[in-house]
Amino acid sequence: MRATIFNGPADVTLETVDDPRLPDAASVIVEVSHTAICGSDLHLYHGVHGAAGIHLGHEFVGTIVEAGGDVRRFSVGDQVLVSGVIGCGECAACRGWNPVQCHGGGARVFGNSLDLPGGQAELVAVPAADTACHLIPEGITPEQAVMLTDILPTGFFGARRADIRPGDTVAVIGLGPVGWFALQSAQLFGAARMLAIDTVPERLAAAEALGAIPVDASGGTPQQVHELTRGRGADATIEAVGVDQTVTDAIYSTRAGGTVSVIGAHLGMAFPFPMAVAFLRDLTFRVSLCPVQSTWDELLPVVASGRISPEQVITHRMGLSEVTEAYRLFDARDDGVLKVLLDPKG
Amino acid sequence: MRATIFNGPADVTLETVDDPRLPDAASVIVEVSHTAICGSDLHLYHGVHGAAGIHLGHEFVGTIVEAGGDVRRFSVGDQVLVSGVIGCGECAACRGWNPVQCHGGGARVFGNSLDLPGGQAELVAVPAADTACHLIPEGITPEQAVMLTDILPTGFFGARRADIRPGDTVAVIGLGPVGWFALQSAQLFGAARMLAIDTVPERLAAAEALGAIPVDASGGTPQQVHELTRGRGADATIEAVGVDQTVTDAIYSTRAGGTVSVIGAHLGMAFPFPMAVAFLRDLTFRVSLCPVQSTWDELLPVVASGRISPEQVITHRMGLSEVTEAYRLFDARDDGVLKVLLDPKG
Amino acid sequence: MRATIFNGPADVTLETVDDPRLPDAASVIVEVSHTAICGSDLHLYHGVHGAAGIHLGHEFVGTIVEAGGDVRRFSVGDQVLVSGVIGCGECAACRGWNPVQCHGGGARVFGNSLDLPGGQAELVAVPAADTACHLIPEGITPEQAVMLTDILPTGFFGARRADIRPGDTVAVIGLGPVGWFALQSAQLFGAARMLAIDTVPERLAAAEALGAIPVDASGGTPQQVHELTRGRGADATIEAVGVDQTVTDAIYSTRAGGTVSVIGAHLGMAFPFPMAVAFLRDLTFRVSLCPVQSTWDELLPVVASGRISPEQVITHRMGLSEVTEAYRLFDARDDGVLKVLLDPKG
Amino acid sequence: MRATIFNGPADVTLETVDDPRLPDAASVIVEVSHTAICGSDLHLYHGVHGAAGIHLGHEFVGTIVEAGGDVRRFSVGDQVLVSGVIGCGECAACRGWNPVQCHGGGARVFGNSLDLPGGQAELVAVPAADTACHLIPEGITPEQAVMLTDILPTGFFGARRADIRPGDTVAVIGLGPVGWFALQSAQLFGAARMLAIDTVPERLAAAEALGAIPVDASGGTPQQVHELTRGRGADATIEAVGVDQTVTDAIYSTRAGGTVSVIGAHLGMAFPFPMAVAFLRDLTFRVSLCPVQSTWDELLPVVASGRISPEQVITHRMGLSEVTEAYRLFDARDDGVLKVLLDPKG
Repeated sequence: MRATIFNGPADVTLETVDDPRLPDAASVIVEVSHTAICGSDLHLYHGVHGAAGIHLGHEFVGTIVEAGGDVRRFSVGDQVLVSGVIGCGECAACRGWNPVQCHGGGARVFGNSLDLPGGQAELVAVPAADTACHLIPEGITPEQAVMLTDILPTGFFGARRADIRPGDTVAVIGLGPVGWFALQSAQLFGAARMLAIDTVPERLAAAEALGAIPVDASGGTPQQVHELTRGRGADATIEAVGVDQTVTDAIYSTRAGGTVSVIGAHLGMAFPFPMAVAFLRDLTFRVSLCPVQSTWDELLPVVASGRISPEQVITHRMGLSEVTEAYRLFDARDDGVLKVLLDPKG
Repeated sequence: MRATIFNGPADVTLETVDDPRLPDAASVIVEVSHTAICGSDLHLYHGVHGAAGIHLGHEFVGTIVEAGGDVRRFSVGDQVLVSGVIGCGECAACRGWNPVQCHGGGARVFGNSLDLPGGQAELVAVPAADTACHLIPEGITPEQAVMLTDILPTGFFGARRADIRPGDTVAVIGLGPVGWFALQSAQLFGAARMLAIDTVPERLAAAEALGAIPVDASGGTPQQVHELTRGRGADATIEAVGVDQTVTDAIYSTRAGGTVSVIGAHLGMAFPFPMAVAFLRDLTFRVSLCPVQSTWDELLPVVASGRISPEQVITHRMGLSEVTEAYRLFDARDDGVLKVLLDPKG
Repeated sequence: MRATIFNGPADVTLETVDDPRLPDAASVIVEVSHTAICGSDLHLYHGVHGAAGIHLGHEFVGTIVEAGGDVRRFSVGDQVLVSGVIGCGECAACRGWNPVQCHGGGARVFGNSLDLPGGQAELVAVPAADTACHLIPEGITPEQAVMLTDILPTGFFGARRADIRPGDTVAVIGLGPVGWFALQSAQLFGAARMLAIDTVPERLAAAEALGAIPVDASGGTPQQVHELTRGRGADATIEAVGVDQTVTDAIYSTRAGGTVSVIGAHLGMAFPFPMAVAFLRDLTFRVSLCPVQSTWDELLPVVASGRISPEQVITHRMGLSEVTEAYRLFDARDDGVLKVLLDPKG
Repeated sequence: MRATIFNGPADVTLETVDDPRLPDAASVIVEVSHTAICGSDLHLYHGVHGAAGIHLGHEFVGTIVEAGGDVRRFSVGDQVLVSGVIGCGECAACRGWNPVQCHGGGARVFGNSLDLPGGQAELVAVPAADTACHLIPEGITPEQAVMLTDILPTGFFGARRADIRPGDTVAVIGLGPVGWFALQSAQLFGAARMLAIDTVPERLAAAEALGAIPVDASGGTPQQVHELTRGRGADATIEAVGVDQTVTDAIYSTRAGGTVSVIGAHLGMAFPFPMAVAFLRDLTFRVSLCPVQSTWDELLPVVASGRISPEQVITHRMGLSEVTEAYRLFDARDDGVLKVLLDPKG
């Protein structure tokens, strides 16, 4: 089969490799029908982490073509979406749909290591299938389903972990696809005012069209948030970038008693946290890898009902054979790219 | 001054009476600028309770024209909205904005007894003003403010007390103004699907235009709710009528583990509650008089931001001099009436 | 094997019957080591419901002697406790440990119908074993484990569903074993004052020794609760009897904004619910069959740590051969009986 | 009157100064009957912050001897306890008992600046008295009341903000008086196992006597916590020291999905926060100055009922005339000192 291989920084190619085999009886093989590139794939592309040879990709949906004997909830022929993050599948946390709290080995992300080959490929092995997959239900298109494998859940989870109440003013820092979904999710929790913060004019304009107040971060984030809230700060701030400056901005933008919810993947080990500021503000600070499958029960009906249309973030549809160019374009932010969908048949 | 007087069942007239005087130093006199008739005013009109001579009306806003010496938060000239329900103003519950939990005498509703004259009048005395009033903030019109004195808070509180989570299917039984606001409030808590239940075609059509699924109650409420939820029942059901049949329907329409939130004013003492059904379903059943002022912190920004436009329910604007006809028309449901606003100058 | 058979009202005998067989591949056969009689078994004994031939008993623990091929979490030889209530084992609710919300057929209780033979026997078939059983962990004795199959979870769940906060005054009506555990569980949620309500002097004395304030119900429950709370009422009331009078008392004993949690099995269909009272008090009323397995994650460490010692309620240990006498004595409340444990070997 | 004056690092003396005067009509003058030295007073003593001339002390109770004309809830002669932290007294946050969220000027702590003289004195002016004071109710001794002005609320709030559920394993790092109260408060939220972490043998022994598992921090905190929790980590960790090492230990000791609640006053601006660790664990990190008065509704009944006896931490009772020696001894941790109470008459 063909799979997207990480050879090293800025070096991603499509290669022909052996078909995957069932790693154990609790696994399935999925024939991928739709897959996508995620902003976090660029961490590998930029050389932040990763080993040569990794099969990239953690956003994919498709059809089960082989199922191990211990798989209870799925059969060959089922069309499924697959969580980008999985656990052992057997512990109480996994059975309660929370792989991030897995105590049988911890959480693993597809396409991030040699151990768990990813889904920007024609075929992919999915371990712990009963807790990793969900049937694509009636009313959900495959393109919507791909958005439910990581980025819509991550944006939604960022909003959930922000303790939003009806009437709140919610600031979202970073309006890439995940921040965009955080903005839409904040409405599900009753946000009355949304402050949408970025530096890209098109993103600010899109947020304004959604009903948010656009804030150009180049003018200083905390200052503008305080001006717009009469000095109080936002009730909740969702950080969807993941660098020191924006995390700091999030802390300073939030009111006393409020919550900062960080979903930008900040992988540093010594972010300079202003304890004295947090102390005087009785601050809640959350940093989250999203347990994707824990959100499906809530998000599937939200998407099916049309309250959120996640496929709208897709700006580019390309063939898997174009994956090298797709990564280049996505990394360069060329051509107004927001989200790239890849067709394994193409 | 002129005030609306309850003379007995179906007998409401405008009379000239003495101007109100400050009952104590914690009170204010409000010159009413806008007032409305509420569905619960019809309980008196129908003779369910009430004594001859009551000054009717618990929905009103206006300008403070006199303030007692102990009033801290308001001054003469302030434009305020007034909660339809008040407490002693001094106990911990009242200071925490919850008159329904008042332990200094309990909750009282304007215009329901001789003790607390109401606001379908030119002037009204407001005791415990510091905990009963709120400045009408910038961005809120007086007509919106009247809707914030009872019915929008009641609909919103019904949704709050229904334990709605994002993705839920929420049934609302009864699409009068309060049920209508419950429907809109359910969206603030993330409802994915709303089942709007009534028998009036216009109300069902309006609910459908809002994005709800219309359900004609004459076809059987629980049956249809179960059909629409594949046999599970609604996650939450809000009852906004207040009679035995609809409360029973609400219980049977709700899934195991779900919540029934009753905001229809059912004043009976022996509703036949099906304990065995509730037991097998681990049901939560709430019956609530809304602590109006506890909702303002959330609802004022919601209205100011335009997420809910409560003035849209107003179908009739009449002068206070037409109050007898206004009651007749409202009671008879003539002329497509949903909500009647009264102008004390007219 | 020998099993306890319900022949009709007040007619329970031990009989030799065929050994159970695995009903399907998701089931196990448990050789019972300890079993108990529950207050709700008396509903059958009193002829409230039930068909002749039922194998009685829903409180039991033992050793797995046979396991179907689809059982993933257990093996032959495992010592397990078994929830008295089970679901389909496959739906999302069941996999999330909540059989009461099962949408694959609904909840079923062992020993209550011919379909699901019970555990006052030498052997019992346990369907949906992966979601019905839990290994008896180190630090938990078998006698403690039996208490974790129904009555400690039920008392705890009653307290959980009562919305208790630290500092609250909690009333518990009915001090049988379930009420006793509700009292102890209320402490886990921070109750500062516990009002223990019953008419049996020994039970009141035991509650007082635990730190509760004993209230003799024959003096009038609501009156005394209001006296002890300076007219406010209890913050939360747990009803553990299940008849009209005590449910009514619970409603009248609870403060505005408080919660009534009914765990007494009241199987009526027309309890006269005072809607007007609930309305003015913004009351939460819950009626619950306990999803036993949902409580184990919390209760197993509570018992292992010694914060609650559930075996203390056991007053009688008898052989299974004495089951007819055990039922008679338990029903008659002879000999200070609170809880009867039965030994299948005896 | 006599007051304790901060002259500079390690230089605290009792001086005769002018009696305080009412700063405004919302204030009262309290004649102090009991006051105490707090661990956070040592921040001034150590020169971390503070200006020469500050009147020290934020833990005190006494009798109102003068009351401004706008004070509504108290009169001359009332015996009151006073929150160590206050706000403007007028904004919605203050009226809701949360000075830390005050948006009318922010929170202020007695005895920390020249602007708000403290209570290690014979007399003290208390602004915003209606939201700063509480009558000492029947059943609470003055010594218990002093403990309710800061340290018991702070320990309790640390536990509240730790998201403890029944059955949880809770680690408390630092067993000074605040950590000690956090340990006792964890029980109010249902902690099954408490890991009590410190290096002082007497403190570890006292914690063990309370039912906690003592952990000597010199053996490595996270390692031992993981050993005691089979590799999972604590469900919740309360940090009551306030230095980089212990905050770091708290983060590494907490399980995925768990909460770190920091109540140790860490006033740094660049604590090296391990974002990558928090990200993989979906961590909640809270840093809190306690809004003391928000806890009284819960803690007064807890103390009155005897569930917590806060006066037990008092090891030394001295006269105010001995204040210089009291500070020296408390700073040096001589003589087994845990908490020093000062008598303004002595």
